[in-house]
Amino acid sequence: MTESKESTVRLLITCPDQPGIVAAVSGYLHKKNANIIHSDQHSTDPEGGRFFMRNEFFLPGLDMDGLEELRREFREEVTNGFVMDWSLNPVWKPKKMVILCSKVDHALMELLWRWKRGDLEADISMVISNHQDLRESVEHFVPFHYVPVGPSLRDKVTAEDTMIDLMGDVDLIVLARYMQILTPDFVNRFTCRIINIHHSFLPAFVGADPYRRAHQRGVKLIGATAHYITEQLDEGPIIEQDVIRVTHSHDVDDLKRLGGDIERHVLARAVKWHLEDRVIVDGNKTIVFRR
Amino acid sequence: MTESKESTVRLLITCPDQPGIVAAVSGYLHKKNANIIHSDQHSTDPEGGRFFMRNEFFLPGLDMDGLEELRREFREEVTNGFVMDWSLNPVWKPKKMVILCSKVDHALMELLWRWKRGDLEADISMVISNHQDLRESVEHFVPFHYVPVGPSLRDKVTAEDTMIDLMGDVDLIVLARYMQILTPDFVNRFTCRIINIHHSFLPAFVGADPYRRAHQRGVKLIGATAHYITEQLDEGPIIEQDVIRVTHSHDVDDLKRLGGDIERHVLARAVKWHLEDRVIVDGNKTIVFRR
Amino acid sequence: MTESKESTVRLLITCPDQPGIVAAVSGYLHKKNANIIHSDQHSTDPEGGRFFMRNEFFLPGLDMDGLEELRREFREEVTNGFVMDWSLNPVWKPKKMVILCSKVDHALMELLWRWKRGDLEADISMVISNHQDLRESVEHFVPFHYVPVGPSLRDKVTAEDTMIDLMGDVDLIVLARYMQILTPDFVNRFTCRIINIHHSFLPAFVGADPYRRAHQRGVKLIGATAHYITEQLDEGPIIEQDVIRVTHSHDVDDLKRLGGDIERHVLARAVKWHLEDRVIVDGNKTIVFRR
Amino acid sequence: MTESKESTVRLLITCPDQPGIVAAVSGYLHKKNANIIHSDQHSTDPEGGRFFMRNEFFLPGLDMDGLEELRREFREEVTNGFVMDWSLNPVWKPKKMVILCSKVDHALMELLWRWKRGDLEADISMVISNHQDLRESVEHFVPFHYVPVGPSLRDKVTAEDTMIDLMGDVDLIVLARYMQILTPDFVNRFTCRIINIHHSFLPAFVGADPYRRAHQRGVKLIGATAHYITEQLDEGPIIEQDVIRVTHSHDVDDLKRLGGDIERHVLARAVKWHLEDRVIVDGNKTIVFRR
Repeated sequence: MTESKESTVRLLITCPDQPGIVAAVSGYLHKKNANIIHSDQHSTDPEGGRFFMRNEFFLPGLDMDGLEELRREFREEVTNGFVMDWSLNPVWKPKKMVILCSKVDHALMELLWRWKRGDLEADISMVISNHQDLRESVEHFVPFHYVPVGPSLRDKVTAEDTMIDLMGDVDLIVLARYMQILTPDFVNRFTCRIINIHHSFLPAFVGADPYRRAHQRGVKLIGATAHYITEQLDEGPIIEQDVIRVTHSHDVDDLKRLGGDIERHVLARAVKWHLEDRVIVDGNKTIVFRR
Repeated sequence: MTESKESTVRLLITCPDQPGIVAAVSGYLHKKNANIIHSDQHSTDPEGGRFFMRNEFFLPGLDMDGLEELRREFREEVTNGFVMDWSLNPVWKPKKMVILCSKVDHALMELLWRWKRGDLEADISMVISNHQDLRESVEHFVPFHYVPVGPSLRDKVTAEDTMIDLMGDVDLIVLARYMQILTPDFVNRFTCRIINIHHSFLPAFVGADPYRRAHQRGVKLIGATAHYITEQLDEGPIIEQDVIRVTHSHDVDDLKRLGGDIERHVLARAVKWHLEDRVIVDGNKTIVFRR
Repeated sequence: MTESKESTVRLLITCPDQPGIVAAVSGYLHKKNANIIHSDQHSTDPEGGRFFMRNEFFLPGLDMDGLEELRREFREEVTNGFVMDWSLNPVWKPKKMVILCSKVDHALMELLWRWKRGDLEADISMVISNHQDLRESVEHFVPFHYVPVGPSLRDKVTAEDTMIDLMGDVDLIVLARYMQILTPDFVNRFTCRIINIHHSFLPAFVGADPYRRAHQRGVKLIGATAHYITEQLDEGPIIEQDVIRVTHSHDVDDLKRLGGDIERHVLARAVKWHLEDRVIVDGNKTIVFRR
Repeated sequence: MTESKESTVRLLITCPDQPGIVAAVSGYLHKKNANIIHSDQHSTDPEGGRFFMRNEFFLPGLDMDGLEELRREFREEVTNGFVMDWSLNPVWKPKKMVILCSKVDHALMELLWRWKRGDLEADISMVISNHQDLRESVEHFVPFHYVPVGPSLRDKVTAEDTMIDLMGDVDLIVLARYMQILTPDFVNRFTCRIINIHHSFLPAFVGADPYRRAHQRGVKLIGATAHYITEQLDEGPIIEQDVIRVTHSHDVDDLKRLGGDIERHVLARAVKWHLEDRVIVDGNKTIVFRR
């Protein structure tokens, strides 16, 4: 569906499942004369489970003031009686996104290239790296900031503070093969707003150097995993995964090259879905309302 | 979701898209205290398009009499004002299904084997074939009927009449590599209730001997297509397709063998989805509410 | 290539890589007027690595006596000067194969069904199970033997001795979801001749109940792994792996059902390749000469 | 295998199959003390078929003069008695490649980006387009030439002559969504040296606007095909194909976007294989010695 983004809003809901949620929401939207474009829902269990909903609708003429009014009204008229996490997100206002990277460019360039083609609904204000290597490639698209990270924890905290200042308000931070471990403070500041690409099919080969270990183990498929970052490294909610077939004739460098293509696409899909409000976190898992 | 089938109903709706459909349906279901287990919807265009909905819900204690009452009430209270095709299908009453086959067994055996494991919600009353070859394999599972088809059109009509008598009431006819072309009369009697497996990735290699032609063309993937039968051979609404990679080293027999595995799975998925009321026909296309 | 099996032989070679191997082998085969049908080779490193070769050729009129003579001559004329593991396997004499299973039938039935269709070059003499559940399904194809396994190690050894007696000479033992851990003695007796299907994408979810753990982790793909059994559980050389996409809407039972289809195919491919002499073990890895 | 490119040569052979080819070739290479890195072969039929071989080997110290000598010697000592098409290609001398494009950038950028990363063994001297749109994107990597094509056949011939002058000696021309039909003269001048990406899974949707027609037909997978250009449009030897799953919820623009990703990868793989001498044309088919 190629719909206009003007006046279009996405409603996300998470709450304990109970009868009447859909009736309340759709009744309200009908009363407002909203035109529903897409609607998805999921219940982990109709009795005692959790309920998730994504609605995309448009209201002709809706602007930011109107959206504020809609939020107020929705809170009063619909959410009453439900213990509901919800948001109403304007499609015409793309999310603010920053990309962090180190020396390897494939995942980064895929994002920038897709963004330039209009395939990612984001406002990418900058790329930050702890190395200078990718400056030239990046500046063809967006500003590049070099924030080196020293060896001590104090250095790391200083670097993260610099990054926080640089980024300002940000809705999504994407780690496109950023090879620094972030502090728990940084991670918790951006809960469910940092997406990482891990170069293995998690939970296989958690940790460092997964392609070498995949080669040693003699696996017949290698993969990549996009997930939200939590304090537990490589343990956050998985958004997307994919694999590619390999054979005995591929050495470690081949696996890195082939795996790189999977990383590019897995990360691009996960970022696209997040930007389109298709991902809802449920504990350590995700609900992904794909098409 | 492993839900009880008792008291569970599936509601399918097709109608011109217009505001208020979801509100009307969900408002009614809420009033009835129905517990919605799954809900999917699709609109080809919110303005002037067509709207499709699948709802799975349960009403404790609902039996066939209650369902009749529900249908009556739904018609009066909900469908008014909408030009709506709809059905309320009891999950506890599996669809009546008959399989037609000829000499090749792989697609047939996959269906029977999955059915025996409880993976297909059907009441398979019989298998009918125009050859005796598969009698023994079939009778291990269900009754087998031999209905030969002579060379003339008159013979074909006679054979089809015999099959119609044998089948009685039937909700779904599956052509598991049945190598006879059905008459338009037969096809139209069972509109959107005959599923065929075509041994190519349609619309490539429409017609006879697709594997040989795929080999001659030197394609690098071969496939299979499950579709509803219409008067136009190989042109009916596609339900499911899949492919497998082949190389220069595979000859025509290899393609048949590899393609056979794809046929098995494509047909089994299409039949399963039909039985679970996941497929809605929209002109010459299908809406498939997969999970 | 659909070739006649009569007079056809497969030559497998493993040795340290060094110049002249191919020249020596192909020179000898040319001298014998052998008609080479397929030839594959692999070197882990042309300098100091290991070399692997698979040759399929036919010699008109070759029978078992002629093969013995060929083996003698090949040893004398070709293998001299190389530290070579090699075998010459008659294609017209299928390998002796036994399947072990417990209560779950999908992987077992896939093997029996493919074998009956002529897709597996094996002489399946029997199925052995530690439960009676699958007797009827099996006896439709081959003899079934019930060998229960008691709780103590002594019981296990007794059961394995019974199985060894029943099986007699055997080239390949397939564990089609056989839920007993074999003793090291048993495993070592049949080195590289026991293939197991593990119901996860190893090394993810090593150990018990992988589907439940996959569901808890929220992975977006599930898989299966066919591997040779070694003393280290789930750590033996991997022959084949595959995956299927799952979503948040699939519960543990769905994963078992979907995963079962992957298990069937992964195991069937691994067994087929072993029977066709396509798999060579290299330490804890496999070389698989697929087409 | 990451091997040094210096002194490394690839030998390609096509000839009627007959005993002794491998013995002659491997005997010669052994005599020369060549170190064989990879070897692949294929026979369409050992009796009366055609034989194809690809050998990658290195000879320490081999330079262009030595290669000329090797070619002379190989012709005299090996090819005698066989009706053999063959070539000895120096790996250290990348093929000269030119890309033609029009307005759409995705396939083009994928090639340039992979080339810049060192993933394509080519000397890309220029990009030629019949539109100015992509000049800036291209000039970041290589020179860009604008060669407009007027409406008449005479205009087309003039434009092709201009392109031939610009390109000079060229080993491979890649049509990265170049939207002009080439004249038979141009096509025949570069037999088996022009690779095109067709935005459908051929032979489905031969001709124009395949995504729109795929949408109308309601297919469940869309694909792309890389093939050599012949006088018969869309009918040349297929090198590579791939597909992606789509659903009822994707409109034509979605298909274009999703298909674009498949086009990128299918074309990149086909070009990479051609550059690495992995593709041999056999009539209207290809032998592809993938790893």
